[in-house]
Amino acid sequence: MFEAAELGRKISREDFDAMAPGLRTELLDLQQQLRQADFPVIVVFAGVDGAGKNETVNLINEWMDPRWIVTRAYGKPSDEERERPEYWRYWRDLPPKGKVGLFLSSWYHAPLVDRVHGVTTVAELDEKLERIVHFEKALADEGALILKFWMHLSEKAQKKRLKGLEKDPLTAWQVTATDWEHFGLYDKFVAAAERMIMHTSKGHAPWQIVEGADSRYRSAVVLQALKDAITKHLSNRETVRKVNAEIKGKAAKSKVGGPAALASQPSILSSLDMSQTLEGAEYNQAVQEQRARLAHLYRVAKERGVSTALVFEGWDAAGKGGTIRRLTNALNARDYQVIPIAAPTEEERAQHYLWRFWRHIARAGRVTVFDRSWYGRVLVERVEGFCSDEAWRRAYGEINDFEEQLTGHGIVMCKFWLHITSEEQLARFTARGEIEYKKWKLTDEDWRNREKWDLYEQAVNDMVERTSTRNAPWTLIEANSKSFARVKVMRTVADALETALGKVKKEKKGK
Amino acid sequence: MFEAAELGRKISREDFDAMAPGLRTELLDLQQQLRQADFPVIVVFAGVDGAGKNETVNLINEWMDPRWIVTRAYGKPSDEERERPEYWRYWRDLPPKGKVGLFLSSWYHAPLVDRVHGVTTVAELDEKLERIVHFEKALADEGALILKFWMHLSEKAQKKRLKGLEKDPLTAWQVTATDWEHFGLYDKFVAAAERMIMHTSKGHAPWQIVEGADSRYRSAVVLQALKDAITKHLSNRETVRKVNAEIKGKAAKSKVGGPAALASQPSILSSLDMSQTLEGAEYNQAVQEQRARLAHLYRVAKERGVSTALVFEGWDAAGKGGTIRRLTNALNARDYQVIPIAAPTEEERAQHYLWRFWRHIARAGRVTVFDRSWYGRVLVERVEGFCSDEAWRRAYGEINDFEEQLTGHGIVMCKFWLHITSEEQLARFTARGEIEYKKWKLTDEDWRNREKWDLYEQAVNDMVERTSTRNAPWTLIEANSKSFARVKVMRTVADALETALGKVKKEKKGK
Repeated sequence: MFEAAELGRKISREDFDAMAPGLRTELLDLQQQLRQADFPVIVVFAGVDGAGKNETVNLINEWMDPRWIVTRAYGKPSDEERERPEYWRYWRDLPPKGKVGLFLSSWYHAPLVDRVHGVTTVAELDEKLERIVHFEKALADEGALILKFWMHLSEKAQKKRLKGLEKDPLTAWQVTATDWEHFGLYDKFVAAAERMIMHTSKGHAPWQIVEGADSRYRSAVVLQALKDAITKHLSNRETVRKVNAEIKGKAAKSKVGGPAALASQPSILSSLDMSQTLEGAEYNQAVQEQRARLAHLYRVAKERGVSTALVFEGWDAAGKGGTIRRLTNALNARDYQVIPIAAPTEEERAQHYLWRFWRHIARAGRVTVFDRSWYGRVLVERVEGFCSDEAWRRAYGEINDFEEQLTGHGIVMCKFWLHITSEEQLARFTARGEIEYKKWKLTDEDWRNREKWDLYEQAVNDMVERTSTRNAPWTLIEANSKSFARVKVMRTVADALETALGKVKKEKKGK
Repeated sequence: MFEAAELGRKISREDFDAMAPGLRTELLDLQQQLRQADFPVIVVFAGVDGAGKNETVNLINEWMDPRWIVTRAYGKPSDEERERPEYWRYWRDLPPKGKVGLFLSSWYHAPLVDRVHGVTTVAELDEKLERIVHFEKALADEGALILKFWMHLSEKAQKKRLKGLEKDPLTAWQVTATDWEHFGLYDKFVAAAERMIMHTSKGHAPWQIVEGADSRYRSAVVLQALKDAITKHLSNRETVRKVNAEIKGKAAKSKVGGPAALASQPSILSSLDMSQTLEGAEYNQAVQEQRARLAHLYRVAKERGVSTALVFEGWDAAGKGGTIRRLTNALNARDYQVIPIAAPTEEERAQHYLWRFWRHIARAGRVTVFDRSWYGRVLVERVEGFCSDEAWRRAYGEINDFEEQLTGHGIVMCKFWLHITSEEQLARFTARGEIEYKKWKLTDEDWRNREKWDLYEQAVNDMVERTSTRNAPWTLIEANSKSFARVKVMRTVADALETALGKVKKEKKGK
């Protein structure tokens, strides 16, 4: 794979100096265009030590405007990072739209190094590479331009380069013991890298192998590639924008056709027994019981550093707020956080749609309650046409992947759809208008959403079908009776905690 | 001080139930008004264990809409928090405008507990209280409503309460060994609390002592106080808004008078020898020398976890960008971050103006370069009238306090004003229009700013006078010669690092 990058390619100083001013002007100009664009540029550097990763990143910062560039490198994770899924730290560092992110020792670092040192098997490496592919695919699907450079040196060239750096007192510090250790593992390193590049070089995030021996040659190649890719992407995105606008226009016209046929199908919600209630003494006893269980279990979870993520979705007026308050009542206010998901802020709009949820992932042992969630994409955004058809369709996979990372990290996850019948909703809307301190809750939008009941029902059906997984299952809550709903939610959370904590116990015994 | 909170005051269930619905409606209604308001509500709870801090916070979350409330409590700082000044973690959690922040074991916790356990002296306690006063004053000055509740119990009542909680299996977990340990220190605790309340109860952030023995009484008192305070603040802020608009209107009319008289005064900038240059071989040698020093010193700093914050301000076209790039060139791209300060984002606008700078404070050992900075308040915001006269005048103190916290944490700080003469600026503006890849840099705003040269010069003069401190000094850079400026900046940073690192060394030897 790397033969072509060991040919000793060079560019003379004269040639480089001749091309530099023009290239630099173009890059700066592109950066200005990029600032208005609707996508970020993500550039990953990896490769053989001494092949010029740092120098190239420095050069980009020098040639381009560093104010619109973020450069990131990752060492040992901090405790705040360790308490969250592995990718949390990459998500929080992603460049917003219009900026360039340069990543040194990125998400590729640990998988590669762990394999070289035999910490992981080939199968485990493949699994991690699969995670990377999903991650980059999700970013690219939302428009990100992703470029990856493998800076290469032959074994001989690496040795020469390291020796050279060591000789010069100004650069000697750049060569560490780790570098020489890596050099000793050169063959293993290159073998793992080859597998890594093979598995993760995709159309939407291709690797480019760059011969790193000659600083002018590698600089020219990287900067030229960067220029070409940004130029092309700017024009592609413009086309995408036009096509999407066209599709949306057509969809708006043909909207009348779809829903009727869909609405006639029974949805998963129609199977619910909506007559279930729980009243009086029976309710009081059940609430007390579940409250006590929750109060106990979440404290054990807290001690063990097990976090909980609860997602609440449901019809307007289904009682999400009241249910959440009954639940959090069993918890100490310092241990939970209710995150209301409304329209995204400016900073959130400048990022991938999952970014704003990643940023709310709590530290170990906390309970995070999402009042509405990332499912907005396949519910309101789908029904209201706020995102393209393609976007919400691929969201199922992206969401499953996101939740898999959370549950894979040991986070206990419950997702609730609070279901009420259309009649019950009407009754509640009417009542809301009459209770003084509930009036503010009822908006025109609620009435508008109500008109699209069938479309939402179809969306809920698809959502549950596509995203109810073993570790992050949906629980449908029959919520015509608020008391029944509250108890069922509390019991479901308590059960989930009990199962998760039981598992932890067993695993510990097993050791 | 606490006698009045040991009277055994109670509210009957009937009385409480009678007042509850009305109070609740009003609070919810206020919360809706608050969402449109231009200030956050910060509520601090402290007090005797068992006096109902947690219960009250839970109740507020239950009665009000928890989606517009953030509840925070603080335990041991994480490593990311320890690597930054103490208040970083409070700043990052501050509620934005329109939201309510409930703080349990807040910035008061450590000062109080450390004093009770004799970790700190009374003088040290006072120093920490002084820091708190500054912090709350800065927030209040920007409009925040700050309420502080000391939940009190007499020694006898505390004992009774702890015993009671322990008896009930549902609440027994709430009582920890720490609680009994605190109980043993009751007298010391109350003495320290008295001092704390005395020193930090200010008009803009008053303490209210609440008898905590009866849950209905304390709930009613806190919720009523919260209601009254929000009501009053909403109306106060409306008045402030009107008065400010009036002042601004008047100022706009009378603008012509001021500048002429001010402009005739010599400023600190007029004392600079602007003819200094550094050319050819002399320049090359100097750059190489300083680069090598920097490259070495920042690596030592990194190893020792010493961070560096560099602030660049200066006239348009003074060469900030180029100077920054020459400087960062000596560093590894992974170790520094250039933060361009432009217009604040939506999330930043919803916070205190210093919030967006706090969020960029880097972890230990990093170099952060601010291209423009918090000094915008006393420069562009002052000159352009973007903030009130009072706001920029008090900013000097707020900024000194902010920087003191950074340097107090061991961060090395250099601040540069890049000075060029008006003639030089004109020449550079003209040249920019002619160089293809520099054209984008020149905007209409640059020409407009140029017309206000005298006002800016006065603002710079005042800024340097008021904020050049021993640990965070301003260095004025004669930048008519770019090469001279670059070398002087590099040398200043290297000198500062050398001094700081030398100090560290000596201190270590001393031990």
